Amino acid sequence: MPDYVHGYSNRESTRLQDQADALVDIIHGEAIFQPGSRILEPGCGTGSQTITLAANNPEAVITSMDVSAESLEKAKARAAHLSNVTFKQGDIYDPPFENESFEHVFVCFVLEHLKEPVKALEALRRVLKTGGSLTVVEGDHGSFYCHPHNAATMQAVDCLVKSQSMAGGNSLIGRELYPLLNKAGFNTPVVVPHIVYVDDSKPELVEGFSKNTFTAMIEGVREKALELKLIDEATFDDGIRGLYRATEEGGTFCYTFFRGTAQKED
Amino acid sequence: MPDYVHGYSNRESTRLQDQADALVDIIHGEAIFQPGSRILEPGCGTGSQTITLAANNPEAVITSMDVSAESLEKAKARAAHLSNVTFKQGDIYDPPFENESFEHVFVCFVLEHLKEPVKALEALRRVLKTGGSLTVVEGDHGSFYCHPHNAATMQAVDCLVKSQSMAGGNSLIGRELYPLLNKAGFNTPVVVPHIVYVDDSKPELVEGFSKNTFTAMIEGVREKALELKLIDEATFDDGIRGLYRATEEGGTFCYTFFRGTAQKED
Repeated sequence: MPDYVHGYSNRESTRLQDQADALVDIIHGEAIFQPGSRILEPGCGTGSQTITLAANNPEAVITSMDVSAESLEKAKARAAHLSNVTFKQGDIYDPPFENESFEHVFVCFVLEHLKEPVKALEALRRVLKTGGSLTVVEGDHGSFYCHPHNAATMQAVDCLVKSQSMAGGNSLIGRELYPLLNKAGFNTPVVVPHIVYVDDSKPELVEGFSKNTFTAMIEGVREKALELKLIDEATFDDGIRGLYRATEEGGTFCYTFFRGTAQKED
Repeated sequence: MPDYVHGYSNRESTRLQDQADALVDIIHGEAIFQPGSRILEPGCGTGSQTITLAANNPEAVITSMDVSAESLEKAKARAAHLSNVTFKQGDIYDPPFENESFEHVFVCFVLEHLKEPVKALEALRRVLKTGGSLTVVEGDHGSFYCHPHNAATMQAVDCLVKSQSMAGGNSLIGRELYPLLNKAGFNTPVVVPHIVYVDDSKPELVEGFSKNTFTAMIEGVREKALELKLIDEATFDDGIRGLYRATEEGGTFCYTFFRGTAQKED
């Protein structure tokens, strides 16, 4: 099994579901495709985005692919009620499909974990029909900040950036989508940032994003960060307390996702 | 004269004009008020925002105030063609106006320079009519990041954050607008982030924002940062090179402004 930085635990599964709920508009807002379209969702994992993608496109034919058989089993169980999704095990660098098999490719929170994102985008471009489109949604952990500002919190967040980088990934990838799409042969990509800004007037985002998505994700890297000696225990825990403080009255939270869309031109 | 962190040079005047041009939509997008409205613009400086505010509200009666007589002279020269603006020297902590004198107060890039932003907002609330509204636009230098990511660049930007903080200001104020407005007695403020994202597809923003606004601003703090020993010369200059690199092909730039609006309720 590949070394997925967030792990494969049940808590991680719950975290991904909370994230999917809070961010559904940002991720899926424009991912509505023509009836009859064939859509590939590479790196579907346990199916957090699959459910929404399938619900929003009931007349599309969706193929969700992942390299992990274990994740695919969970995704299948979750999507058992959906008739328009097929699951397929496969490598994003060499998708098991003919050239030009899909009208759309929907890639969400996948490139950040890859050693060679351009190679993956090139492979996805191969299976995309000419005239078809690709959507890529990625976060950027360097876009996080909060009030009150806290140096230990920024260091704790940086532990995830560093550990993901040491595992060959790139959690600062959101800002880089435009040049990556260019390098993969997409000539006129459009990249749009979507900032999640949370203050007291948005209690559902305080819970759904600040606490259950972002803070949970940073808490999840504790063991690995200490093991890798990226930070000392006291500073890390102080950083986590700073995250919780930013979810209390008068606190604010900011994080930016990037959505890139590109066409496969003639 | 107060210790304005960006200085009072002609280059600074040009930088502010470039900034005003590139960011006009973000700053003034919703600042269109009823004909006949009396609008106060405190901290108008040399009038960078005054011109647009007056042009967008030709039938409003605008009073632009600043503590610096020298800045006001420049603003007056710039606004000589405008019939709907009056300039007044005055202290934002004690504006020289009766209670409830204005339907709107428009505050742009001012609070970040103040030691007591809540006290200023309370004073502005006093001169605002019940039912009237306040608009506050501020940046947040901690929201900056770019591709390629560069540690020296982040350190150079942090020099401006630190030197502004040492002068009693707060360049991380954007993320804090919501609680500040709350503390000043505005009960239901609405704060919206506006991200400026720049890539190769936006050459006018590469010039108007990335180079002529943001990079120029960071370059402007060089002397003070070295004098205060916040950074060594080689690292600072490396950081500036990193900023320019992010304006070249394949580079990207991100910065977020925050607009807060609030009503004075009964």
